[in-house]
Amino acid sequence: MAGQDIENLIKQIAKLPALGSRSARRIVLYLLNKREAALTPIIESLQKVSENIKTCEICGNFDTSSPCPICTSNIRDDSLICVVRDVADLWAMERVSLFKGKYHVLGGVLSAMEGVVPEDLNIDALEKRIASGKVKELILALPATIDGQITSHYLLSRFKDSGVKITTLAQGIPMGAELDYMDEGTLQLALNSRKQL
Amino acid sequence: MAGQDIENLIKQIAKLPALGSRSARRIVLYLLNKREAALTPIIESLQKVSENIKTCEICGNFDTSSPCPICTSNIRDDSLICVVRDVADLWAMERVSLFKGKYHVLGGVLSAMEGVVPEDLNIDALEKRIASGKVKELILALPATIDGQITSHYLLSRFKDSGVKITTLAQGIPMGAELDYMDEGTLQLALNSRKQL
Repeated sequence: MAGQDIENLIKQIAKLPALGSRSARRIVLYLLNKREAALTPIIESLQKVSENIKTCEICGNFDTSSPCPICTSNIRDDSLICVVRDVADLWAMERVSLFKGKYHVLGGVLSAMEGVVPEDLNIDALEKRIASGKVKELILALPATIDGQITSHYLLSRFKDSGVKITTLAQGIPMGAELDYMDEGTLQLALNSRKQL
Repeated sequence: MAGQDIENLIKQIAKLPALGSRSARRIVLYLLNKREAALTPIIESLQKVSENIKTCEICGNFDTSSPCPICTSNIRDDSLICVVRDVADLWAMERVSLFKGKYHVLGGVLSAMEGVVPEDLNIDALEKRIASGKVKELILALPATIDGQITSHYLLSRFKDSGVKITTLAQGIPMGAELDYMDEGTLQLALNSRKQL
């Protein structure tokens, strides 16, 4: 095999999400085969991101400025805060281009398995934003998993006396889905939450 | 969505083998979440590789030195050259730790579809190595695809009068395989090349 530098790089890349040692090796060889076209530009982009991207001090989003453009936007509704698990979920909401409020990134969800407690999450900052008095509604857009639901319940019990309306995303059959392929939990939920036409 | 720097990085990572825009986004968010533990070390490793790794002037392998340790090794057999498509295949052969000759990396295989002609491959350098008179056997370890076979035949016809013995890897049923899952081409080949016990 080749030198230690290459081995180290392969090991680090293999730890990235969705990758293993086999794909890491393929990526490193690809980069070495295309130094000018791929390796050098990627190093430059990683450095730019490393130097320029900050975590927004208000919502926890990643951007070149802190507070981020969403938090400083005048046309977005200050009274509406959408609580998401991480920046990936914030970006997913933004791709829909429908939500015109602000965000709050928790940085995870409560988890008994992984030992995540409320102090590990970005909840104190959320409490301060609510205490400022501007917020009228908190939309909990957390994952539809057990941990996500537990986190939603925790936030509900913590902020239920704050005078802020607390809502959550609707659950049910996703668009375009075949009933045949839906799990029983989703079907049960969709049936229980049925709506009159 | 976040700034242009992040978008550029996602686009570049999405072009890497085995990755798409979705996994590229996950990787970038992972790196931003773990700046000290992942982003900074990966930038450093990429830089090291970019600065230190050279293409071996003799065989085409990647290493910190050129000629590479395999080419300069005294305990490896100079008279035996294993011809491989790329460095990934060279590493695959080295993982077996059985072959004790030298290598020659072609940098691809002939392909009518992709317009790869002999001049695009590292064949002239191979011809020079053969002309030096040291080489006694050329082992063609090219992929068992149509393009790989065409390349093997091309090399055979080009070097058949050079006095060098030209061999190729055996083809047949791979270790541990169920006959039921083998394609017909492999079964036919294995039957035609059957051996007496």
